[in-house]
Amino acid sequence: MNKQELVNQIKEKRSFLCVGLDSDIKKLPACVMDSEDPVFEFNKAIIDATAPYTVAYKPNLAFYEATGVKGWISLEKTVQYIKDNYPEIFIIADAKRGDIGNTSALYARSFFGEMKVHALTVAPYMGEDSVSPFLSYDDAWVIVLALTSNPGSHDFQLTKDENGEMLFEKVLRTSQKWGSDQNMMYVVGATQGKSFENVRNIVPNHFLLVPGVGAQGGSLEEVCKYGMNDECGLLVNASRAVIFADGSENFATVAGEKAHDYQQQMEKELLAKGVIK
Amino acid sequence: MNKQELVNQIKEKRSFLCVGLDSDIKKLPACVMDSEDPVFEFNKAIIDATAPYTVAYKPNLAFYEATGVKGWISLEKTVQYIKDNYPEIFIIADAKRGDIGNTSALYARSFFGEMKVHALTVAPYMGEDSVSPFLSYDDAWVIVLALTSNPGSHDFQLTKDENGEMLFEKVLRTSQKWGSDQNMMYVVGATQGKSFENVRNIVPNHFLLVPGVGAQGGSLEEVCKYGMNDECGLLVNASRAVIFADGSENFATVAGEKAHDYQQQMEKELLAKGVIK
Repeated sequence: MNKQELVNQIKEKRSFLCVGLDSDIKKLPACVMDSEDPVFEFNKAIIDATAPYTVAYKPNLAFYEATGVKGWISLEKTVQYIKDNYPEIFIIADAKRGDIGNTSALYARSFFGEMKVHALTVAPYMGEDSVSPFLSYDDAWVIVLALTSNPGSHDFQLTKDENGEMLFEKVLRTSQKWGSDQNMMYVVGATQGKSFENVRNIVPNHFLLVPGVGAQGGSLEEVCKYGMNDECGLLVNASRAVIFADGSENFATVAGEKAHDYQQQMEKELLAKGVIK
Repeated sequence: MNKQELVNQIKEKRSFLCVGLDSDIKKLPACVMDSEDPVFEFNKAIIDATAPYTVAYKPNLAFYEATGVKGWISLEKTVQYIKDNYPEIFIIADAKRGDIGNTSALYARSFFGEMKVHALTVAPYMGEDSVSPFLSYDDAWVIVLALTSNPGSHDFQLTKDENGEMLFEKVLRTSQKWGSDQNMMYVVGATQGKSFENVRNIVPNHFLLVPGVGAQGGSLEEVCKYGMNDECGLLVNASRAVIFADGSENFATVAGEKAHDYQQQMEKELLAKGVIK
């Protein structure tokens, strides 16, 4: 999926919501646990209920790997289900991979060649050759961790170098040479508030994937104030706050309502910034 | 496995060789391709041939994920095979994971709780809460990327901060607060030569996992000169140079010979440093 197609979808759905399919088997509602593949059953219901308000799904692979082979089967079925039923929706494998060149090339083959997701999150610590193999696939995206939403983000990402540049800024600036706003995005946590200004100074046109709204306490208003650009330029992710909003048989209906709530807040922001009319 | 057990094994086998099970399905010898699970067949033969000279195995997960569900089955069978037949050998899942706290906790459950490997490689970019969940398992190890072997390692890892400290040094120093030499190791690439001196200044007692000997061109002598300590303190990894040394039906025999070569070089180094007699 290319950038224009993503922007078009945002304008049509009047939403930039990404739903995180962090479908921890230990947290699923009892009503799906009898089915053959509870994680897939759960995801299917969540997807059907939230798709009208959602432009992207982001399974975090940890939740699938946690159950080994079974988890990988659930993941592959989930990706296929989205592609078959909602081909307009952007699929992000939240994998946070990153290895030496030939190994990253293999990860690229796995996620883009085989599973055919649209985007993959990548950790930048190992530098260019750990990221660039992901950039050789058409209409596939690398989403590089820049400034994450967790407390530990301060340990290294805010370290200033000799010239006063923080590490996350260096990651943003250096990685410009590897790809463009047509095949790279960045992770910037919703908990980082005004740092979005620094980010936008360096990457005015790139899409940002923004986790940390909801359970982690980030503010949608602040993210939009400092991070939104003329094409929106944001995918704001909510995981637990949507998918685990209700633990009863109504889980999917309530998840759909939560997604709708987010969509309505997002529509206001898009209108205020003139991205849509 | 605790540190003393690992040191004992090194002294008994007179080796600190780690064999990287980077068993790319596209590079396997023709003679295993007819079996039901070629990757597992290949690994089993490589393990049986190299185990006498090897103290650790390190499957890089990329090579297993590349084939999805099938790959995960091969991986689980491989880990179980090592545990059943060579329980003294240290198993490292080279996963380079690292995520926000609750997600890292899930990875920890997956690799230490379910698969029961001894160690996992972790990327430090996201800071403390991305690493510390792995430290709550008994006799399990986190191996933090510090200074990697690839060309891109220079992009960020060597960046000097305001006080002249390089990022990899900061990672070494900061992470001391999270764990000890009883549950943390560091990845330092064999291609980094004299930087091992800087590393040893900061972490004199920690084990280092050293990739990059063999196909990537690092020198075993240099690594030992600057990196070995009184308990050895090194796990030197060779992957392609051992497992793909021969593509014929003799692949396992030749891999065993290559591992034996490494063991003999390593024995000399251990003797020269007085780690063994």
